[in-house]
Amino acid sequence: MLKGIAVSDGIGIGKAYVIKEEQLTYEATAEDASKELQRLHQAVDTFCRRTEQLAESIAKSVKPKDAEIIRGHIQMLKDPYMISQMEEKIQSGASAEAACEEVLNQFIALFSGVDDELTRQRATDVADIKKRMLRILLGAEEKSLAEIPPESVLVTEDLTPSMTAEMKKEHVVGIVTEKGGKTSHSAILAKAMEIPAVLSAEGALNALKDGEPVIVDGSQGLVLPNPQPEEETRYRQQKQAYETEKEILRGYIGRATVTADNETKEVFCNIGNVKDAITAAQKDGEGIGLFRTEFLFMDKPSAPSEEEQFEAYKKAAEIFNGKPVIIRTLDVGGDKGIPYLEMEKEENPFLGFRAVRYCLSHEELYETQLRAILRASAFGNLKIMVPLVTTVAEVRAVKEKVKKIAAELEKSGIEYDHGIQVGIMVETPAASLVADLLARESDFFSIGTNDLTQYTMAADRGNPQVAYLNKPYDPAVLRSIRHIIRCAKNAGIPVGMCGEAAADPLLIPLLLDFGLEEFSVSPTSVLATRYQISKWTKESAASVAKEVMNLETADAVERLLRSKVE
Amino acid sequence: MLKGIAVSDGIGIGKAYVIKEEQLTYEATAEDASKELQRLHQAVDTFCRRTEQLAESIAKSVKPKDAEIIRGHIQMLKDPYMISQMEEKIQSGASAEAACEEVLNQFIALFSGVDDELTRQRATDVADIKKRMLRILLGAEEKSLAEIPPESVLVTEDLTPSMTAEMKKEHVVGIVTEKGGKTSHSAILAKAMEIPAVLSAEGALNALKDGEPVIVDGSQGLVLPNPQPEEETRYRQQKQAYETEKEILRGYIGRATVTADNETKEVFCNIGNVKDAITAAQKDGEGIGLFRTEFLFMDKPSAPSEEEQFEAYKKAAEIFNGKPVIIRTLDVGGDKGIPYLEMEKEENPFLGFRAVRYCLSHEELYETQLRAILRASAFGNLKIMVPLVTTVAEVRAVKEKVKKIAAELEKSGIEYDHGIQVGIMVETPAASLVADLLARESDFFSIGTNDLTQYTMAADRGNPQVAYLNKPYDPAVLRSIRHIIRCAKNAGIPVGMCGEAAADPLLIPLLLDFGLEEFSVSPTSVLATRYQISKWTKESAASVAKEVMNLETADAVERLLRSKVE
Repeated sequence: MLKGIAVSDGIGIGKAYVIKEEQLTYEATAEDASKELQRLHQAVDTFCRRTEQLAESIAKSVKPKDAEIIRGHIQMLKDPYMISQMEEKIQSGASAEAACEEVLNQFIALFSGVDDELTRQRATDVADIKKRMLRILLGAEEKSLAEIPPESVLVTEDLTPSMTAEMKKEHVVGIVTEKGGKTSHSAILAKAMEIPAVLSAEGALNALKDGEPVIVDGSQGLVLPNPQPEEETRYRQQKQAYETEKEILRGYIGRATVTADNETKEVFCNIGNVKDAITAAQKDGEGIGLFRTEFLFMDKPSAPSEEEQFEAYKKAAEIFNGKPVIIRTLDVGGDKGIPYLEMEKEENPFLGFRAVRYCLSHEELYETQLRAILRASAFGNLKIMVPLVTTVAEVRAVKEKVKKIAAELEKSGIEYDHGIQVGIMVETPAASLVADLLARESDFFSIGTNDLTQYTMAADRGNPQVAYLNKPYDPAVLRSIRHIIRCAKNAGIPVGMCGEAAADPLLIPLLLDFGLEEFSVSPTSVLATRYQISKWTKESAASVAKEVMNLETADAVERLLRSKVE
Repeated sequence: MLKGIAVSDGIGIGKAYVIKEEQLTYEATAEDASKELQRLHQAVDTFCRRTEQLAESIAKSVKPKDAEIIRGHIQMLKDPYMISQMEEKIQSGASAEAACEEVLNQFIALFSGVDDELTRQRATDVADIKKRMLRILLGAEEKSLAEIPPESVLVTEDLTPSMTAEMKKEHVVGIVTEKGGKTSHSAILAKAMEIPAVLSAEGALNALKDGEPVIVDGSQGLVLPNPQPEEETRYRQQKQAYETEKEILRGYIGRATVTADNETKEVFCNIGNVKDAITAAQKDGEGIGLFRTEFLFMDKPSAPSEEEQFEAYKKAAEIFNGKPVIIRTLDVGGDKGIPYLEMEKEENPFLGFRAVRYCLSHEELYETQLRAILRASAFGNLKIMVPLVTTVAEVRAVKEKVKKIAAELEKSGIEYDHGIQVGIMVETPAASLVADLLARESDFFSIGTNDLTQYTMAADRGNPQVAYLNKPYDPAVLRSIRHIIRCAKNAGIPVGMCGEAAADPLLIPLLLDFGLEEFSVSPTSVLATRYQISKWTKESAASVAKEVMNLETADAVERLLRSKVE
């Protein structure tokens, strides 16, 4: 069994179709430079024409967006600097092949050396260009992935965008490579084509023989060459279950979120930028439950301007076109490393001067953000959410600021939503304990289970040594969640959840029983969450919750929930 | 006004009695070595005789224990290595004075260079020895502190133990030095003599003139030369109030702790070692509510042996002679820096793998401690307390271990208390939330308000930037405390508190109303806590608590409590 990186879910069972690199040989030097120059330019033209054809076929077979990746190759090769370097080498006596290979190798080395995954991926793109250019120059047949036999598992060193584009995708049941990671083009394309894929499976090219049976588990990142019959049976069952589930989920696209006894709920999305907002809308999110604005502040030399923030919030508002978009104000601490915020290094940053604590004492920074949100609120249904609240005083202070800025906008005749809501993250033990008082000051609650769990259990969620304690299944955490929801309901304000727990099938019956209304999850979990919610009636959820809430340990809770949910 | 370190409470008003160092001059060389040797030995004898006299007078006038410090000087000087070095120098032509000064200077340099406060204090002792030896050798009059006039404020560079011993303490109303810290001998002696003292008041020897009026505020660490009449009046009033309070407190020595309507409570002490246990007994503690065993593990190359721990726990048990002594098992984290425990550096040590979490996965270390406690339990009324509990599973695991070790002792015929209680610190939000479940597994609760507050408020108690949030007056913390006490009472187990809040006069009416039974405080706070408890009836405490528990912010709570308590 080989292990690799799981990049595209599902199970593929078929025969290995192994593509190994062939060595292309050519003369390094040539006497007739003008002939070589002509050969080079012809090859570039051929490359561009073929690539454009490939891009068109991708656009049809997969998604228009993904064709852009392959069109990018034309841009790269046509870069005047790149071409002129090749021409220079030919003038100095190199053959077109040698000029092409040497120059492109320089770029590969350049991109590979940068400590940034996206730049490193460009090295793969250039390698792809190089291989294809050499084949064109040498008149070598490009091994046609268009003729890959049915039920094939494609095995290759690195899945190049051109290969992905060319291959007859309905014949490919799985993909295994020796290179590539989570964010590689190959990963993106495999996911878009919904083909189970395992990348960076070391030794795959040697272990898998052309034509031999192989199983690809794209969810676990496993590759099984020559599976035993019982293994194959087990995986066929898993595949069946996976496909049934996917089929079921497809049935939930565009539908309202309702429980089995027809109570309406909402499934919102957690996002970090405008691009995520587009994905969230595509994945059928009914709103944005958490816009993590800190990503607008990261990897920059200074804070984003009011205008820059305004544009981002406005776009999210417009994409969701009247549906709620909840903007969480800056939630950072000394651990996130944003140099221009000049946060002090702290002994315990998670218990430090961060989020709303920091913002309330950095007036300009915070008011700029609040002003951007208020201005953007004229373009949709924006709400403001305050992170890491521990006291009533903090909520009052933020509301004071919002009121002050609203008055200023009013005076300047700038539009904003006069009824904009200000809600809070309930994610500290203190906020849970005084949730009744906070509910009187807040327009809504959103429970942040990741932080709530770590603070309640006094167990850093990033520390593997205390991971065994950091569980939302712990009775202490469940009681806290139940209490928070009750306080919101008593005060008549809406209550959502934007931690990972909101998408956990095991917890959904409990959350329904407690009365949670809005589940904010990652875009890819929208349909699954909607489906899970549809399984439960008030009564069936209550019966599970009643049993669970009598248990004493997280393990017992998890065990019982598994028996009830799966 | 001069500022220094407040080491001994109270206010002293009097006239400065300034002692400046005189320069003692002598010939550095001498021809007759045998004569010099004789002079040296005579001086040593004189030194020892006078020192013994001093020690005896201290033993009478202060406390027998403190005389040991001054007797230590005899031991130091009589060290054969020290004397032989002096003798050698004399053989090489040095005068007795020069030999004495050179050798003792070496020791001063040696001790001063060590990065440990206690060792550095030994440098002060040696300097004291040196000065007195030179005076004896030179036949110089020792400036007699025995003749210090009444109402004097003693001003000196460093208060040496011999000065402290010699002085007519009933004439000294205050002490000011330019050197010395919280743990210096001078501080200890000043405290024992109950003379207001400010140490390390820079520039005192120049600012204060012999015979001029001066006020010493030993509580705030302030020295006022030549006070204005209105300042003096204000300080006289403060002094009066302080003395009245002290007089009142004296009335509580040896009395039971009862409320104004005669409900019995207990005032216990927090200690870190056997010496503290002696102090706790002297200060009239009714038991030990918290023995912090981590001090036995610090500043060592390896963990203390079972025997070493056994001796410490046994002594504490014997000192309290049947009264409860609650031993908290090892409570350390990566932040405490005990190299041999090999704890990993953590991003957030307060949310890390520490205390009972660490102990439960380091069997040998933990079982050694538990075995030492169990063995010592045969000699008094010891209880085991588990820190940082978050789950029922942890308590069960510790109890399993205790049971296992008890069975082993039984088998080996070693005595232990078969009914030894195992209780827990309730100091995490999780423990508070499931206090009802934990109460079923625990023989007692002790609320650790310092940690409970920091975890509840998600505010590091060591981080000054979030100190404004880290308050036990916060409604969230007060609700948590009330809930924990209620759970203990519902389960019928005793409940104490060993955080700083237990000694806070402002909180005492609330704690009484919630039903707290045992207040564990620092030894110096025993009488004040007993006194504060005596002020409240069930009714008066309830009326304050009722008002407080309706408030929304820590500030409002603190303000109301100040108005009710002071």
